Amino acid sequence: MNGIITLTTDFGLSDPFVGVMKGQILTRFADAKIVDLTHDILAHWPAEAGFWLMRSYRYFPRGTLHVAVVDPGVGTQRDIVVIEADGHLFMAPDNGLLAPLASRMTGSRIYRLELGRLVHFGIGAPSATFHGRDIFAPLAAEIAAGRCRPASLGNESQELVPAWVDEPVEASDHVAGVVITIDHFGNLITNIDAALIQRFRAPVVRTGAHEFVLGRTYGERQPGEYLALVNAFNVVEIARAEQSAAEGLGVGRGAPVTVSER
Amino acid sequence: MNGIITLTTDFGLSDPFVGVMKGQILTRFADAKIVDLTHDILAHWPAEAGFWLMRSYRYFPRGTLHVAVVDPGVGTQRDIVVIEADGHLFMAPDNGLLAPLASRMTGSRIYRLELGRLVHFGIGAPSATFHGRDIFAPLAAEIAAGRCRPASLGNESQELVPAWVDEPVEASDHVAGVVITIDHFGNLITNIDAALIQRFRAPVVRTGAHEFVLGRTYGERQPGEYLALVNAFNVVEIARAEQSAAEGLGVGRGAPVTVSER
Amino acid sequence: MNGIITLTTDFGLSDPFVGVMKGQILTRFADAKIVDLTHDILAHWPAEAGFWLMRSYRYFPRGTLHVAVVDPGVGTQRDIVVIEADGHLFMAPDNGLLAPLASRMTGSRIYRLELGRLVHFGIGAPSATFHGRDIFAPLAAEIAAGRCRPASLGNESQELVPAWVDEPVEASDHVAGVVITIDHFGNLITNIDAALIQRFRAPVVRTGAHEFVLGRTYGERQPGEYLALVNAFNVVEIARAEQSAAEGLGVGRGAPVTVSER
Repeated sequence: MNGIITLTTDFGLSDPFVGVMKGQILTRFADAKIVDLTHDILAHWPAEAGFWLMRSYRYFPRGTLHVAVVDPGVGTQRDIVVIEADGHLFMAPDNGLLAPLASRMTGSRIYRLELGRLVHFGIGAPSATFHGRDIFAPLAAEIAAGRCRPASLGNESQELVPAWVDEPVEASDHVAGVVITIDHFGNLITNIDAALIQRFRAPVVRTGAHEFVLGRTYGERQPGEYLALVNAFNVVEIARAEQSAAEGLGVGRGAPVTVSER
Repeated sequence: MNGIITLTTDFGLSDPFVGVMKGQILTRFADAKIVDLTHDILAHWPAEAGFWLMRSYRYFPRGTLHVAVVDPGVGTQRDIVVIEADGHLFMAPDNGLLAPLASRMTGSRIYRLELGRLVHFGIGAPSATFHGRDIFAPLAAEIAAGRCRPASLGNESQELVPAWVDEPVEASDHVAGVVITIDHFGNLITNIDAALIQRFRAPVVRTGAHEFVLGRTYGERQPGEYLALVNAFNVVEIARAEQSAAEGLGVGRGAPVTVSER
Repeated sequence: MNGIITLTTDFGLSDPFVGVMKGQILTRFADAKIVDLTHDILAHWPAEAGFWLMRSYRYFPRGTLHVAVVDPGVGTQRDIVVIEADGHLFMAPDNGLLAPLASRMTGSRIYRLELGRLVHFGIGAPSATFHGRDIFAPLAAEIAAGRCRPASLGNESQELVPAWVDEPVEASDHVAGVVITIDHFGNLITNIDAALIQRFRAPVVRTGAHEFVLGRTYGERQPGEYLALVNAFNVVEIARAEQSAAEGLGVGRGAPVTVSER
């Protein structure tokens, strides 16, 4: 462990929820380096958190612990899992959030937290509604400080609650995926990995009645013009130069997107 | 002091106001650990900041300094106070923000800042409009670095400007409080502490014409259903599973809430 | 270098873009102290970023590196520049962002990044759309860690792409500038420095048909009253006590503002 903990939640920053999580981490591990990935995950849509974690973790050094708390089932019978993969650790509720990441990363190991073991780390009974503060934060501190190994938290598991969004489908003449998130600029970001469209010589990206030729970067187009591109996170994206494609097209999360030969 | 400084303001994050406060802290105390509690306090409503500070400070280790700058009177004749309580320090304008916290914490000591003493710490004449940067930040650095004790800043005081919101009223058959803040999820958070409703066997929470039975956690209800609960900060809250109670009910800050026996 | 890196972008905080920049910085320089200046620069308007950098850098200690990524031309033929001035370093795309800062700071030195030299620092081929993560972040880490001096990155240069907004004009009986940004409180912040209006005994500030006498601080006025003032960043500002001047007046960025004798 390198002492870095990333946080991904749907808590927003307008309340002290993220702040008190950091307080609980620093209480146990004063030298933690806490990095906010984002706290504006669409409330109660874990798919977005899982997507961004999978696409972002590699920009942190190995030995980083990534904590994601998007947890509509907090206080009910849902498990917490810790996954070891590619030299990183991931901790989240077992609600589909980490399923796409675990299924793509070969050699990943999944540990299912046994709540009864928390007492060994001095973690008391949690509130019913804020496990981010009462379980995730103190446990993250113990793990990042090197005082607790995932294998000591619970048994290894092979199964996870399935992902919220299906993986893209590869058909004979096209690939079909969905808009998985819309970024700050209004770009429509899909779950279609660049590798899936390499077979097309001149790919065309379609959503609804709209059709876009693949470009390389926003600055190639005049302001207001649309383009599709493989973005910096290596997935297909539909953008509008200096404007919001989401607003311009009226397209939202979950919308179907296909890529085929021109 | 443990080197941790929390910041609570109404500055938002869209301007560099919080950033330059951190710059001023780091200029004097390079090892400060600065944690944002929130910067989205409703502009010019100190009550919300005081509520969150009182409910959040205990999740940080003792020896933390909590700085709150919600300061509509900046540049006029309002004092700055530093309060020692429960092993933590709190610094804020004396505008009612810290009054509920000071009145509830026995053994708290209140120090009223004498501006003339700032020169001993190399803190020059402040601007008229940004004491967060010009007084609070450098002074926080000096205090957190252990170079300045509250008692050296001014005389001890017994009085504070009164709180903006009355404490809940305990009547023979009910408790009456108000919605003190609305969180990111649209939950209506009241100032009614769990201890005040323990005398009811089957508490009912009312606001306007609406009435809610007390539940335990959001996941117990179907999406869209309302519930009241004692939340993770130990106050009564009205929520709507996976939706916004504030929008659904059209209820805002300051709205009266009562709890009584069913 | 003191290890502090400030970040100013138009990325917002709703996606992990800023988070992965921090990941890339920490990957190379584990002890970096990263401070967010703001990430809510109006998308694609570098003028605002340049203004805030120029007005904010001095509140950080010398030896700080300030990184600004507001970059509509990312992936096209625009340069990246590093400027040494007043003991601080500034890095940004050469798109007008840093021009006002460089022109005002005597003795500043401008270095134009030669992309071919990045390989000496182990910085590989960037993506087409996210140089913040692929160039600015790793290079910032190398510079802040003291492993790379600006002069080793490229030749010194005398020219920059001109600023997006003209400097204020000093006429015989007035000074004319513009609203350069609107802050979180709705205050209209102009590019007119206090020094430019010192010649007026009783300055009047005008925008559109509105006229304001210069005051000192918000708290001097009744809630809802307008005032002009020299703000804490030493420029002329039009404000409304406890309310938004921008909304009240219907005035936005770029609006002309003049100051003259009453």
